[in-house]
Amino acid sequence: MTDFPDNWGRWGDTDQLGAVNLITDEARARGAAEARTGRTVSLARVTTPFPLTGGPTAPATAPTTAVQTMMLFTGFGAPAMAEVMTVTTHHPEVTHLDGLGHWAENGRVYPGVDVADSSGPTGVRHGAADVYGGGILTRGVLLDLAPGGRLAPAHPVTANDLDEAAARAGVDVLPGDALTVRGGWDRATDAPPYPGMTAGAVRWLHEKGVAVFAGDVGDAMPPLPGEVPGALHRLGLGRLAIPLIDGPDLSELAVTCAELGRWTFQFVVAAPRIAGTTGLPVNPLAVF
Amino acid sequence: MTDFPDNWGRWGDTDQLGAVNLITDEARARGAAEARTGRTVSLARVTTPFPLTGGPTAPATAPTTAVQTMMLFTGFGAPAMAEVMTVTTHHPEVTHLDGLGHWAENGRVYPGVDVADSSGPTGVRHGAADVYGGGILTRGVLLDLAPGGRLAPAHPVTANDLDEAAARAGVDVLPGDALTVRGGWDRATDAPPYPGMTAGAVRWLHEKGVAVFAGDVGDAMPPLPGEVPGALHRLGLGRLAIPLIDGPDLSELAVTCAELGRWTFQFVVAAPRIAGTTGLPVNPLAVF
Amino acid sequence: MTDFPDNWGRWGDTDQLGAVNLITDEARARGAAEARTGRTVSLARVTTPFPLTGGPTAPATAPTTAVQTMMLFTGFGAPAMAEVMTVTTHHPEVTHLDGLGHWAENGRVYPGVDVADSSGPTGVRHGAADVYGGGILTRGVLLDLAPGGRLAPAHPVTANDLDEAAARAGVDVLPGDALTVRGGWDRATDAPPYPGMTAGAVRWLHEKGVAVFAGDVGDAMPPLPGEVPGALHRLGLGRLAIPLIDGPDLSELAVTCAELGRWTFQFVVAAPRIAGTTGLPVNPLAVF
Amino acid sequence: MTDFPDNWGRWGDTDQLGAVNLITDEARARGAAEARTGRTVSLARVTTPFPLTGGPTAPATAPTTAVQTMMLFTGFGAPAMAEVMTVTTHHPEVTHLDGLGHWAENGRVYPGVDVADSSGPTGVRHGAADVYGGGILTRGVLLDLAPGGRLAPAHPVTANDLDEAAARAGVDVLPGDALTVRGGWDRATDAPPYPGMTAGAVRWLHEKGVAVFAGDVGDAMPPLPGEVPGALHRLGLGRLAIPLIDGPDLSELAVTCAELGRWTFQFVVAAPRIAGTTGLPVNPLAVF
Repeated sequence: MTDFPDNWGRWGDTDQLGAVNLITDEARARGAAEARTGRTVSLARVTTPFPLTGGPTAPATAPTTAVQTMMLFTGFGAPAMAEVMTVTTHHPEVTHLDGLGHWAENGRVYPGVDVADSSGPTGVRHGAADVYGGGILTRGVLLDLAPGGRLAPAHPVTANDLDEAAARAGVDVLPGDALTVRGGWDRATDAPPYPGMTAGAVRWLHEKGVAVFAGDVGDAMPPLPGEVPGALHRLGLGRLAIPLIDGPDLSELAVTCAELGRWTFQFVVAAPRIAGTTGLPVNPLAVF
Repeated sequence: MTDFPDNWGRWGDTDQLGAVNLITDEARARGAAEARTGRTVSLARVTTPFPLTGGPTAPATAPTTAVQTMMLFTGFGAPAMAEVMTVTTHHPEVTHLDGLGHWAENGRVYPGVDVADSSGPTGVRHGAADVYGGGILTRGVLLDLAPGGRLAPAHPVTANDLDEAAARAGVDVLPGDALTVRGGWDRATDAPPYPGMTAGAVRWLHEKGVAVFAGDVGDAMPPLPGEVPGALHRLGLGRLAIPLIDGPDLSELAVTCAELGRWTFQFVVAAPRIAGTTGLPVNPLAVF
Repeated sequence: MTDFPDNWGRWGDTDQLGAVNLITDEARARGAAEARTGRTVSLARVTTPFPLTGGPTAPATAPTTAVQTMMLFTGFGAPAMAEVMTVTTHHPEVTHLDGLGHWAENGRVYPGVDVADSSGPTGVRHGAADVYGGGILTRGVLLDLAPGGRLAPAHPVTANDLDEAAARAGVDVLPGDALTVRGGWDRATDAPPYPGMTAGAVRWLHEKGVAVFAGDVGDAMPPLPGEVPGALHRLGLGRLAIPLIDGPDLSELAVTCAELGRWTFQFVVAAPRIAGTTGLPVNPLAVF
Repeated sequence: MTDFPDNWGRWGDTDQLGAVNLITDEARARGAAEARTGRTVSLARVTTPFPLTGGPTAPATAPTTAVQTMMLFTGFGAPAMAEVMTVTTHHPEVTHLDGLGHWAENGRVYPGVDVADSSGPTGVRHGAADVYGGGILTRGVLLDLAPGGRLAPAHPVTANDLDEAAARAGVDVLPGDALTVRGGWDRATDAPPYPGMTAGAVRWLHEKGVAVFAGDVGDAMPPLPGEVPGALHRLGLGRLAIPLIDGPDLSELAVTCAELGRWTFQFVVAAPRIAGTTGLPVNPLAVF
C-alpha cells in the first residue's frame, strides 16, 4: 500500500478537517442550489433504545445495546418527564459520524499526529468529531449499487461499480461532494459476510474529491480475500481523512431519488456539539 | 388562563407533531429559498463533556454534568479509539429539543393524552422527540431583543418586545416559521434572575403561527411577579404544542444576521433518531 | 389487611433501621459465637456484567442488563486497567439489599414518612440502604423448604412451611436473627409462575422477630390467587420494616448446612457505603 | 529493584488469589476467634453520590464523580422507588478493592500473564476482583502510624515505622493477616503532597506474610524523592499479589481500637459478586 495516496499535509500539519476542506464556497453553494422544495429525507437509522428498567422487575436481557435510557423520576406531581441516555456511539444500530481521531494508521492520526497526542483518557484533542460542529453542508450524490435489491454477500465494491452506478444516475461526482453509497445491507439485522469497499474503490473516492462518505456498505466483514482489510477505515478515514457516516439507512433516500429521477441533493450533517469525542450520533439529511 | 388558546385537537386527536404541522410545503420551500450560498451558522452551544476518569487518579469533582464520557479501552494495539457517552439531555449546557411528551399540563400531554399513557418507565409512547426524526426544515427568523447587549435581569419579554424586534429587522413572522429569540443570556454561565417569556409573548407565537421556538430566553427563573410561571413550557410546549429548542447559543447567529443585514435563513434541525425519549441533543443550523 | 401488624412507631417516629433494631448486643454476640472456623459461604449470585463495547464492533444485543461495564482506556503504556460500571440495582440478576425507602405503602415509607419527603429526584433522604453501612451482623438461620429440590411452581409459602423447615433443622428462630429461606428458585433463569410468601408467612417473620430476610423465594409472580399480592414487599418491607436481600443464591449455603449438620451461622452483610439509594448490591456471607 | 522479591509462581502458574492464599484454615480461625461481641466498625468511606438530575433544572457542576445516581421513574402510583448507579470504581472517594488484574508490571499481571491475555475490551479474564467473591475473612491488625494525628506531608513510610507501630500496639503481624495502616490522610479531601509507602515498607508486608492491605496511606503523590514511584501498587499489587483496599476510612477503627485496647479484630471483605472487573466497591468490616 505504499503507493496508496494520502492527504497528510495537504491542508497543513495541524489541520483537523481533512477532506471536508474540499467543501469550498462553490461546493457549498452547489449544495444549497439542490434544495428547491425543501423536501427532506433522513439518512439515519431509527435507533430503539433499551430502558434499563421498565416495569415491576427489570428485564434480564436487552434486545439492543446502542442506546440505553433511564427514565428519570422528576418528582411527585412534576409536569416534566425526562431521561438520561447512555450512547455507545460506534455501534451498528446508531448512525454516527466517525471523526478523524477515531482512527490511527500506524499509530498516527491524520495528518501525522501521534495517537498518544491526539487521544487520551480525557478524550480526543485532535480530530474530534465536533470539529464539524458548524455543520457539513454540500451537494450529496447517491450511487445505488443494487437498485431495488442488495449486493451479493461478500461482494467487493470496486471503482468500476461506482463508475457504473454514476453512469446509471447520469451524475458526475465532483470535488467537495458528499457521497452516499447504497448496497442494500444493514449490519444491525443482516448476517455476515458483508460486502465491502476495496482499496480501489477508496482510491476512487480520493480521485473524485469526496469530502464525506456515507455508505450502508463499508468495510467487509470478514475481510475480502486478497483485499486490504478495513480499507475504508484505514485508507479512507486514516490516510485520506474522509470522515465517515457509519451505519446510515439509505433505503428511503434510494426510493426518493428513483421517484424524483434525481440523484443529487443538499446533504446536511448537524452533529450535536459535544466536544472531544471520536464520534457522534447524527441524522444526516438529504434536502431536495 | 382559561382563555389562553390551545392547539389540542387542531390536527386531530392522535397527532404527535403539534405546531410543526404548520410547516406546509409552501413554508418548507420558503425556507429552502433562504439557502443561497450555503453559509451556515450553528445555533448550538459547545458542550464540553467530563471524562469520568482521566489520569492516574480519577478527579474528585466535575465541572460539568451535561455529558460524561468514558474513553474506552479497545484493545492493545487497536487502531480505533472510542467512547461511551452519558447524556443528561434536559441540561442547561446541552442544546436540546424538547419533545411534546416532555410536558404534561394538568396531567395531559398534547393533544390530551393522559401522561400515564404517553410516558412510562420504558420511555415515551406519545410525543417523543424522534417524531421529528425526518428533520425540521423551514424558514427561520431571528428576533434580537437586545442587539449588542443583553436584556435586563428578570426582564419580562412581552408581545410588544417581539413586535419591536421584528420591526427593527423588517421581517414578518409567518405561519410555519421557526422563531429564534435572542436575549443575550446563557443559563449555564449567567446567574439568575433570568428574563423570561410572558404569557402574552407566548400568545404572540401562537398568533403568528410559530412552528418551533429556539430562544436563549425561555422561562424566567425565578418566576416573574404577576406572570404565569413557566409560561413557555406550560403554554407554549404544553398547550400550543410548539416544540422548544432549549439552551441554544444565538450569539454567532446574531452577528451573522447583522453582518449580512438578513434576519431570515433556512432553519434546519436534524436530531439523532433515537426513539422514545422526551428530548434529544441537537445542533440547529441556520443556512444563508 | 387492616389487622396485619406493623412496626411503625415501634422504634420512634424518625427511625430508619426498622427490624434491624432487633439485633441487640445479645443477638450480635450470638451471631459472633457461630463463627468458629471462619469457613464462609457467599449468598450472592455471580452477576456477569455486559461490556458495552467489546471488540471491533459493538455487540447488538446484551445477554444481561443488571450491570454494564465500560472498560476504560487509561493511556498508552499505562500499567493500570480500570472500568466504569452501570448498576441496575433492583434487578433479578444482582443480589441486592432493599432499603426501607425502596417501598411506600399507601404513599408512606416506614415509619410513616410521606414518600415525597423520603425520596426525590436527588435520591433517598429517609430509609436509604446505607443506613446499614456499619454492617448487619447477627445469627443467620437457613430454612430449606425444598431440600435437594425446589418448591412447586406458584407454591404459596405458609407459616406452616416455615415451621416444618425449622423443625427439620431443629432450630428456633429468635428475635434479631437473619432468616434465609430457600425454595430452590432462580428468578433470573427460571420461568414463572414463581412460588411466593403468603401474608401468613410474613406474619410469622414478625412473630419470630426476624431482623433481615434473604429468600430465593420472595413475592409470587403472578400473584397467588386469594393471597395479598406482593406480601413480602408490601407487608414485610413496607409495614414491618424488615430489610430484604433480593435475589440471593442459597444453593451453596444449603449444601454446606446439610454437610455440617448446622443450620445456623454468623450472617454478615457489608453493603458498599454509597449514600442515599433505595438499594445496594451486596454479597451476604454465612460464616461457620 | 531486581532484588525485590515477588510471589510469581509461588502458588502455581495459573493462580488468581495471590497473597490471599496465605489465609489458611488456621489464619481464618484466628480471625473468627477475634469476633467476640460482634461489635463492628466499617472501614469504608461514606460515598455521597451525585444525582445526574435533581430538580427543575439539572445542576451544571457535580461535587463528586465517584458515583452518579439516576433516580428512576417507576410509573405513576408505583409503590417502589429505584435508581441506576454509575460507579467509577478506582476513585479516591469510594473505598474499593483492587483486584490483581488492575495492575500490570512490565506488561504482565501476576503470576506472569500477559496483560493482553488478562484484560481486554470485554473485561478481566485473569485476576478479576470477583475471585474474592467468597469473602476475605481473616485476622485484621491496625497499625496506627500517627495516633491522634496524621503523618507529615510527603512522609516516607518505612519498615521501621511499621515495626514501631506494631510495638506500640503490642501485636505481631502473622502470615495471612489483613493489615490496616492508618496515616490519618484522606485523598478525597486533603491536598498533596501525600505520604506513601516505600519499597522497604512493602518488603516488610511480604516478610510478614500480609494477605491483604488496607491503608489510608498508599502510594505517595507526588512520588517520594529517591524512592520507587508507586511502590505499593507496583511491588505490592504487581509483584507480591497482595490485593489492596484503596481509599479506606480508618478513623473510627483507630478510635475503637484505642478505646478497647485491642489492635486485632476479625477482618471481613464481602465485595459484590460482579464478575470480570479490575476492582469493586467494598465495605470492609472490623468485627470485635
